[in-house]
Parts: sequence; C-alpha cells; structure tokens
Amino acid sequence: MSKQPEKSALNKSESTPASPNINPVSINKIKAYRRQQLKGEELSKQLLEGNKTALSLGITLIESNQATHQKEAQKLVETCLPYASKSIRIGITGVPGVGKSTFIEAFGSYLVDLGKKVAVLAVDPTSSVSRGSILGDKTRMEKLVTRKNAFIRPSPSGDSLGGVAKKTRESIILCEAAGFDVILIETVGVGQSETTVHSMTDFFLLLKLAGAGDELQGIKRGIIEMADAIIINKADGENLKAARNARLEFKRALHLYPPKKSSWEPKVLLCSSLNNTGIEEIWDLLKDYFNLTQKNNHFEHNRSEQNKFWMLQTINEHLKNQFYQHPEIKLALKEQLKALDNNEITPFAAAEYLIEKYNSL
Amino acid sequence: MSKQPEKSALNKSESTPASPNINPVSINKIKAYRRQQLKGEELSKQLLEGNKTALSLGITLIESNQATHQKEAQKLVETCLPYASKSIRIGITGVPGVGKSTFIEAFGSYLVDLGKKVAVLAVDPTSSVSRGSILGDKTRMEKLVTRKNAFIRPSPSGDSLGGVAKKTRESIILCEAAGFDVILIETVGVGQSETTVHSMTDFFLLLKLAGAGDELQGIKRGIIEMADAIIINKADGENLKAARNARLEFKRALHLYPPKKSSWEPKVLLCSSLNNTGIEEIWDLLKDYFNLTQKNNHFEHNRSEQNKFWMLQTINEHLKNQFYQHPEIKLALKEQLKALDNNEITPFAAAEYLIEKYNSL
Repeated sequence: MSKQPEKSALNKSESTPASPNINPVSINKIKAYRRQQLKGEELSKQLLEGNKTALSLGITLIESNQATHQKEAQKLVETCLPYASKSIRIGITGVPGVGKSTFIEAFGSYLVDLGKKVAVLAVDPTSSVSRGSILGDKTRMEKLVTRKNAFIRPSPSGDSLGGVAKKTRESIILCEAAGFDVILIETVGVGQSETTVHSMTDFFLLLKLAGAGDELQGIKRGIIEMADAIIINKADGENLKAARNARLEFKRALHLYPPKKSSWEPKVLLCSSLNNTGIEEIWDLLKDYFNLTQKNNHFEHNRSEQNKFWMLQTINEHLKNQFYQHPEIKLALKEQLKALDNNEITPFAAAEYLIEKYNSL
Repeated sequence: MSKQPEKSALNKSESTPASPNINPVSINKIKAYRRQQLKGEELSKQLLEGNKTALSLGITLIESNQATHQKEAQKLVETCLPYASKSIRIGITGVPGVGKSTFIEAFGSYLVDLGKKVAVLAVDPTSSVSRGSILGDKTRMEKLVTRKNAFIRPSPSGDSLGGVAKKTRESIILCEAAGFDVILIETVGVGQSETTVHSMTDFFLLLKLAGAGDELQGIKRGIIEMADAIIINKADGENLKAARNARLEFKRALHLYPPKKSSWEPKVLLCSSLNNTGIEEIWDLLKDYFNLTQKNNHFEHNRSEQNKFWMLQTINEHLKNQFYQHPEIKLALKEQLKALDNNEITPFAAAEYLIEKYNSL
C-alpha cells in the first residue's frame, strides 16, 4: 500500500504527507480500526450528527477510485441528500500569492465566531502534479483548523478536472448533511477550474491585488464576468492607496458587463487579512446577496440550473467517451483521419461514416 | 412552392427577394430547364471548368434540405474534393456599420485586377430572421458582382449555425474546385459565428472603427485573440487622427496576448475603402502571412486541424442529438429533472441512470 499511495484514497492526500515520525504500521492499524468502526449506517448516522471524523471518512470514500468504495460512497451520498442543500456555497478564486489561504483563515474564523459551521473544500486539478498548491498546507490555516466548527479538506488529487469536480460536488452534499452551513470552495486560476467552481457555488468571489496588472487576463478568461464580488486583498500599509485606485478601476470594468441573471450588481471591496479589516463588510455583502437572491428566487433557480448542467455535462462526457473509446471506432477513426489528411473525404462525410459504423456495432 | 419559399433551396435566398416584375412561372421554367441541363457529371464537369452558373447550382444543391438534393450534393462535393484546397481562405468580421461590404468590394476588385479569382461567401446565422444583414444586398458590391472572376453568394438561410457552417464549408470546396483562389468569408458578430468562420479560414481579419469603444467586447468574446490582422476602416478625412490612435491602442492590446501557434505576429493596419488606401498594404500583409505559414508548415497543419475539428464537432453533435431526441430518453429525462429539482437524486446518479437506460434500449 505504501508503494502506491495514490491508488488508495484511504491514505492522506499526497499534498499533506504524514509526519515521518509516525509509525506507518500504527497508521494502518488506526485506519483499519476506524474503517471497521464506521461503515454503512453507522457512518451515515454519525455523519448526520455532525461528527467530523465520519465526514472525513465519507469524503475519503467519495475520493476513492475503488469500486467497492464507490458503491458505498454512492449509498452514503443518497442517504445524505435529503439533509443537504441547506448551506450557502461560496467560490473563492485568485492567482497564487493573492492571499487566498490567509483570507479564508480570517473569513472562516470570523464566521465560526458568528456561530456558523464552516467547511473549506478545494478544486485544484493540478494538485496531483504540483503536490497541492492550495489547501495542501493546512498550517497556513492554523487557527481555523483547530476550531470545532471548521472542517478543512484539500482538493482530491490524481484526477481530471471532471473527476475532481464530481468528487467535490458530492463532498459538498456530505458537508451540508453534517450540518456545515457555509461551504467555501477555493480554487486557483488553472485551466477551467474557476468555471467549474462557479458552476457549483451560489456566490463567486475573486481576490485581487492592487496593481497586479492582470485585469486583461481576468477579462479574457471570463473570470471578472463570473465574479459577484471582487476583493482587493492586502489593502494595508503602503498598499492602501493603490488598493483604492484598483477598486475604482474594477468598479468601472464591472459596469461594462451586462446585468447578471441574479439582478445582483457585483461589488468591489477592500480587505486586509493582516489587519483583519474588511471581513465584516464582506459578510454583510454576502448577506445582502443571499437576501436578494432568495427573495427573487434566483438562489433556488440557480441551484436547479446547476444540477441540470452537471447532469447534462456528465451525460455528454459519457456519450463521447463511450464512442471514442470503442476499440472498433478507434481503428476506424484513425483511417478516417488519414483519409481527411489525404483530402479524400470531407469532415462531414467522415463523421457520417463513423456514426453509421458506431450505430451498427 | 411559392407558399413555402424557405423549403426549396432552388428559390433565391429570402434575403434577396426576386423582383416582383418577373413572372414566377417563367422563373420556375427557367430553373427547371437549368436543373435538367446541368445534372450529375455534366454539372461537375462544367463546375470544374469554372462555370459560375454551374457553381451556383452546385451550392444550391448543398443548401437544399431535400434528401435527393443532398445526395446529389454529396456526390458533387466528393467529385470536387481532389480539385479543392488550392485557395487561400480569409475570414472577415466586424460589427454592422464597420463597412464590411465596401471593404470587400474594394479588396475583391483589387484582387481581381491582380488576376485572382475571388469568391465571397457569408456565414450569418441570423439571416433567416433579419432577412440578410450581410451580403444580402448584392448592390452594395455593385462593381465586384459584375466582374467575370468574382463570385458572390449570400449566407444560406433558415438554418442553425451548425447547418450554415456545414453548407459554407462544402461551398468552399466547390468554389475552389471551380478555380477560385481567394475565398473571402464574411460574418457579422453574432453568437458564435466568428469562431465558426475562424475555424474554416486560414487568416482572420477583424475590421474596426476608430473610437467605437467596443475593445472590451472584442477582448471578452475572444475576437481580438483570433485576429491575424486588425484593420481600422474608414481611416480618412477627419477620422484619420483617431484611426492612428486606435492603431496604437490595438497594437498594445495585441501584445498582451501569448504568441500564436502560427508564430505570426498580428498586425494593425489603416484602410479607407472610400479613398482606396491601405488595400495594397493588406494584400502585402497577407502575402507575408502565407509565405511564413507555408514555410513553417502551419498552413497545412492548421487546415488538417480544422478538418479534424469539424469531423469531431459533427460526431459530438450527432451523438448528443441521437441521445436527447430518443423518445424514451426524452420521457426519462423529464422524470430525472423532476427528481433533481426535488433533491431526490444527484446530477451524477441521474446521468448514470439515463446512460444505462440508453444503452439498454
């Protein structure tokens, strides 16, 4: 097992390696014990009571690629489903160095102080390569991690973005069933990860630094368009003036976009996780947003649209995989690609040929 | 037939209605005669000889939605295929009012004077609604349309963008087989039409006006990123100074993008179709581009990638249609959507259920 840690989801994530001082034999014994203790109904019972160990084990089942675990996981998710959906889901993104972890530490602690139960998840398709650029190092959230009403889980690793997304969405259900009422989902700007997180959250928060000059990048990739709020982070000390200027600039940029379906007007706020300023304002803003969207029904409608999106997305991916991974289609596709390159067939005739072949198999 | 003009591709496009002074009976007689005269081998023979009437009839076959015409069209396209691919394909886009028709008139005439054979096609998914916002009014290209070596064809109408795209791509093949060596494909910025035209052309040209203030729009929708050249049009008289400023601004904006796969650096040029200035520079630019991309093999590689893209695109669309239009899936999908809304199932479990059902049908 220790040779192939990535194949067992019952190991800790690679991004948070176990301390070398711990005897691996003991770890395995403890794990085996836990697994035996918490299975099936007992696991779901404890999870629904808010037991964080049970929640953790449940997510481990979801993240496992072993068939028996997957079956157990599906059952668990189904059991949890009626108790889920009672939270608010907040997506948080920003380039590395913008201070996401420090922000989540401050914001999460503030929410726990308010009596909220806060779960922090992450979507990071690169974590298997970079060994966890986000949430990997829990010590960066050293205060939050010790709080009883906080739960922090790194991104599932070793998987495609689609795989990570499915696992994260199912983990959200477990967190909600365990009574967590604020779910923070962190992502880093890699590939399509923001779009993925945007499509599983109620509110999308973009962290920015003053004067970073990556506005065009954000516009180009559609990140600014998705944001419900832009937070200029590290707005303290010498940065403060630049942060205020950046705020004006982003406000102007936001006005160039068409109104959102939620009829919410995105806001730009300043924040210093260092000085602990701006956190309360952000929470006030979020409350305004949830008041508005619960009244105008966008909240429910959006969640329903997201469910639909994920169902259709999963179907479409599956249809494509089923087609392109069929051994006979693989062969025929090669031939057609060759014929295309030799200008012997049009792309449309080649497609028709392959579809007909597929349907006759 | 006159009651349902949109169902017969052998009528003139709706966007170019026939003069009311012409007896419809005569039109039908002439059409029937032409059709009889030019069919099968005779049609392809005359088309390959460069006969514009044959080319026109061939495209009419491609645009027809009648099964017998489609069969004839496919045969014709296959016959033409070995003689195609010898042209350069230039995509031209810009918002309404930017002067696309006047530019194409000037640019096309210049190319014909150089001894080129120029075909002008259009991709306009809205033409069936708006009755032809582009190329519909051939009189806007009154000089070019009279030239022996020019061929102008409005966008096929009454179809989805996918349908228009397929028809246009096949029409390109016929134009090339008829000896046209420069294909200009015009589109207007609606929905995905620029992306569609970009994926069927070798060079993508964006027309702009000075001070129109829609730069952000272009960046947002990825149009600027696709452009191989930006032409500031109507750079004459009082506009000239503003046009020069706009040129600098766009040059700066272009530098923010990563290098293109073609290793071509997009250029910004000024042009006045009114004063006939800038046209020669644009042609010089195009020659530079084609020299570069033929040397570094991007030209061939790009066409091959485009073929592949269109084949895969067609397959994927078909797989989806086949699934979602299946009567039993339609019913089951409704049920699953309801279960989703009632929070009785996860999107992933619903997708799995539908896929399993589909595979068992």
